Amino acid sequence: MKAVDVAHRLLPGIKWLHGYTAQDAIADLIAGITVGLTVLPQGLAYATLAGLEPQYGLYSAFIGGIVYAFLGSCRQVTIGPTALLALMTSRHTSFGLNSGPAYAILLCLISGLVEFLMAVLRLGALVDLISLPVTVGFTSATAVIIGTSQLKGLLGIRGGGGGSGFMKTMESVFTNLDKIRYGDFTLGIVAITILLLLRKLKDVKIPGRRILSGTLWVVATGRNALVVLIASILAYNTCETHESCPFVLTGKVKSGFPDVEFPKFHTTIQAANGTAIDQDYKDMLKELGPSMIILPVIAVLGNVAISKAFSSAGISPTRELVALSLSNVVGSFFSSMPVTGSFSRSAVNHASGVRTPIGGFYTSALVLLALGLLAPYFQYIPKAALSAVIISAVIFMIEFEVVKPLWRCSRRELLPGAITFVVSLAIGVELGLLLGVGVDVAYLVYRAARPALTVSKLRTTNGTEYILMRPIHSSLYFPAIEWVRTGISKAVVMHGTAPVVLDCSNMHELDFTAARGMGALNKELASKFVPFFLLKASKEICVVLKESTNCDFSTIETPDDLEYILENTASIDDHRLQVTIPLISAQTKVNCGDSTTIDGGGGGGHL
Amino acid sequence: MKAVDVAHRLLPGIKWLHGYTAQDAIADLIAGITVGLTVLPQGLAYATLAGLEPQYGLYSAFIGGIVYAFLGSCRQVTIGPTALLALMTSRHTSFGLNSGPAYAILLCLISGLVEFLMAVLRLGALVDLISLPVTVGFTSATAVIIGTSQLKGLLGIRGGGGGSGFMKTMESVFTNLDKIRYGDFTLGIVAITILLLLRKLKDVKIPGRRILSGTLWVVATGRNALVVLIASILAYNTCETHESCPFVLTGKVKSGFPDVEFPKFHTTIQAANGTAIDQDYKDMLKELGPSMIILPVIAVLGNVAISKAFSSAGISPTRELVALSLSNVVGSFFSSMPVTGSFSRSAVNHASGVRTPIGGFYTSALVLLALGLLAPYFQYIPKAALSAVIISAVIFMIEFEVVKPLWRCSRRELLPGAITFVVSLAIGVELGLLLGVGVDVAYLVYRAARPALTVSKLRTTNGTEYILMRPIHSSLYFPAIEWVRTGISKAVVMHGTAPVVLDCSNMHELDFTAARGMGALNKELASKFVPFFLLKASKEICVVLKESTNCDFSTIETPDDLEYILENTASIDDHRLQVTIPLISAQTKVNCGDSTTIDGGGGGGHL
Repeated sequence: MKAVDVAHRLLPGIKWLHGYTAQDAIADLIAGITVGLTVLPQGLAYATLAGLEPQYGLYSAFIGGIVYAFLGSCRQVTIGPTALLALMTSRHTSFGLNSGPAYAILLCLISGLVEFLMAVLRLGALVDLISLPVTVGFTSATAVIIGTSQLKGLLGIRGGGGGSGFMKTMESVFTNLDKIRYGDFTLGIVAITILLLLRKLKDVKIPGRRILSGTLWVVATGRNALVVLIASILAYNTCETHESCPFVLTGKVKSGFPDVEFPKFHTTIQAANGTAIDQDYKDMLKELGPSMIILPVIAVLGNVAISKAFSSAGISPTRELVALSLSNVVGSFFSSMPVTGSFSRSAVNHASGVRTPIGGFYTSALVLLALGLLAPYFQYIPKAALSAVIISAVIFMIEFEVVKPLWRCSRRELLPGAITFVVSLAIGVELGLLLGVGVDVAYLVYRAARPALTVSKLRTTNGTEYILMRPIHSSLYFPAIEWVRTGISKAVVMHGTAPVVLDCSNMHELDFTAARGMGALNKELASKFVPFFLLKASKEICVVLKESTNCDFSTIETPDDLEYILENTASIDDHRLQVTIPLISAQTKVNCGDSTTIDGGGGGGHL
Repeated sequence: MKAVDVAHRLLPGIKWLHGYTAQDAIADLIAGITVGLTVLPQGLAYATLAGLEPQYGLYSAFIGGIVYAFLGSCRQVTIGPTALLALMTSRHTSFGLNSGPAYAILLCLISGLVEFLMAVLRLGALVDLISLPVTVGFTSATAVIIGTSQLKGLLGIRGGGGGSGFMKTMESVFTNLDKIRYGDFTLGIVAITILLLLRKLKDVKIPGRRILSGTLWVVATGRNALVVLIASILAYNTCETHESCPFVLTGKVKSGFPDVEFPKFHTTIQAANGTAIDQDYKDMLKELGPSMIILPVIAVLGNVAISKAFSSAGISPTRELVALSLSNVVGSFFSSMPVTGSFSRSAVNHASGVRTPIGGFYTSALVLLALGLLAPYFQYIPKAALSAVIISAVIFMIEFEVVKPLWRCSRRELLPGAITFVVSLAIGVELGLLLGVGVDVAYLVYRAARPALTVSKLRTTNGTEYILMRPIHSSLYFPAIEWVRTGISKAVVMHGTAPVVLDCSNMHELDFTAARGMGALNKELASKFVPFFLLKASKEICVVLKESTNCDFSTIETPDDLEYILENTASIDDHRLQVTIPLISAQTKVNCGDSTTIDGGGGGGHL
């Protein structure tokens, strides 16, 4: 392998530099700056949502772009702080003193490592277990949680306990309704209205006026930055000149590049009585607990969804995972909180005409510039404006439009979605997600345990009656066999003792338990002198049956063969419709190896 | 409903009394006494195994038979103490003072209640989740654990710490090898040899000598009682006349009927330093923990397996569950430890010619008689003899004979069995069982997530090439759709842009996530100008697709239809094999409802 190939393998992003034209560079620059104008206000807001000082949002916003430019495979994906991960991070940042950033940064490092592990073990497929209804329930619930968490900022309510859960936030808002500050409230409502209106502008096309249409598009795309800018100017003018400021402001944002240092594995938290308690790495890992698994899985889910949405073929899930993983690992050395692909910014990137992931470089440059030059001005951003930015972003994450098609074509799938939504709101998003996946998986097991089976009494062309059992599913596994066996026994009791034919033409897989159960069924029917046939059983099925049970099964290719076999080996006594003379499956062929007369058969064994 | 019908419904056992002849009574009496002769030594032994005084085994042995006679539906089943439940109970009986019986009796009550709940909620089907390899791994491991737990009794080692786990028992045996008492050891080995030889005698038929054959059969069936009786006589004579007794004896067995009282919800345990600690019901429930669920599930599994093995049709699983449940609930008022159907005694019952569950009455009567009259003599039973009884019963629970057919026809199923076996031995039977079931369930999910899919490039009768994708499985669920989508995308890349035909003739179920994924695939292929057709899609599938995605899919009945549609709606440009003129599925029919250009499709949603 040539050196250049090795470089390509290690840093796939290099390929973008081949034939990178000035045109490409300009397109990427425009897209990069547009995304940057989105990520600046979002970063400040999401850091606050995560319970951190605003600058941490910017620290988190620049590394992803750089790492992804080297390693990513989808030009639209922009990696950085997201509302969802900020919410999940916020659970671990409220212990006072300097523990907030310490926990967030450690969680960022661990998420990156877990994502790397997922890439190595090919566990990226775990996100396949999250069905669309569960995804919708989960994102909708997080949108509601995030939206309500911004109510306090929007209403200008300061302090008042609170907490990260939906219930606690609502309680805190309602018990503090008397503390609403009307300046913030008015600003927030106006900002949300403007943001939603500007969002609509994006799609407005004025025929013949390309420049006007273009301007409208730029304004619509940069709406977050615009609204925050206007609100800040307003606040600056009001608060610098008046004695009392009508808005709660963001407060000092630390200026400059973050310290480059190894994530801390120890911190100090504040106990209930105000004393400081040292936490070593064990305490910290214990506190992070299941978040160390669930947060990376959610991050991967988001990233996979985005790269799937924008670019269908040629995406290597493993490479995407590695890029995401390193964005977090490297980020944690620059005081980043956990990051993943942002759907909204990726859409902005796409719409801005990005051509290569190098666009992320320009975004990162803009963020660094802001950290260096604009940070002193960020303190004038009213919190209500940032809350408005978040609220008008997350309300589009509430996706009740899937309820209607679900109701129409697959009502039972509403259950996992609803459980995820309700439990996420009532208890926590992690438990909600796990329960939703649990319900979905339980359904898969249920389908395997209770396969569809049709029973009908038919006649061969010569008029011999037989009972045809037709499983619709293609496989028969351990949880189903006892049920199928009981069904066949019942059919025999109900339909009289006509020969039983099991249609195996659709059956492609049979496990050991199921094969043993079939053996027990064969023997049971033989003891009642009911002939039992397998119709169109594939060779694999026959081999498994033979090897597992040591029984010979009678197989036929069409129901009419049945007649031939019956005529040649037995005569049917009409009395009580019972076959009284030993039949092919009753004596000549049943020879099931084991000499004990008692056999637990499918379900049991010797307990 | 007539009063007699009500009585029949509530006490199904009454039906046995209809036409109960003297012959039936004699057959039941013989079988009942034979079973009684088995349950007496087993009860004493299993109580010891459970860490209780021997009489508790007898208390547990008589209620089951009476309750089951009224409520049961399978004449062979005999309910009472079993080695497995005794082992599981033993985890909670080693806290000193009187806590052993208190915990065992409370566990009996709770098991009964949980079983009742399982009957009401129709959760009996949960045992379907335990596959045969897991069952075998579990029973084999318990057999090994029980067998080794008897080593100390067999070797006459007294005290020496110990514990209930396999590892601890082995350690305790090996560190105490110097304390072996050769009297006990000899007696134990001789007893086991005799028991195994007598077991063989059962099948010996001496032609023409019916009485001799019959006698041999009686001796073989009553071998446990016989060996214990002989050993006790030996011990009585030796120990009453000699100064030092060469055998460890059972010790005083409390005589008489057990106290009838409500199970205690409080007890006293001995702390490490010897002081007594009061335990209220919370402490007791916490100590019992997962045993409260796992023990009843195991009990149900055993009972279901037995009733299935002996009587195939006409068994109502719910009624069996109620009978088992009440045996435990009523039993707990008579100081019983948890009980379930015993496979070995049910086999004895069957072989003794039992005709109705009334046989259980006679067993119970014999047990009560023994409690009243024989108890003073039980103290002379050497422990080694009881250990021999247990060991020669459980070695037949080790079922390595399934390994061979599993290896030959389904190697992957060895894994859940092996995990269950190893973890049960190394850590605990409950965890072993759960992990085994977990591995099995994970495989079911894996099969749903990675269905078999064949891809082939074919030609229609007129020579038009197309790519045929044929899923072998009958359903397409959420975990599979992204994988299938990727497979189809890859096939298109690999085989060039020939039309893609998805064979849906075997497909019977499609969930919402899968339908949405198909919609995204349809759109993706359309954007590449690759026509996409569903072959032989059933009406249900079409409805689900239509309702879920708002897309129209092109469906065909045979691959040749493809040609007709292509010819009538498009012309194929040979240049680069790409279809350049909009095709039916590319523009005329794809109209997927949502106006946004970005669609997360199957896996994602807007994260």
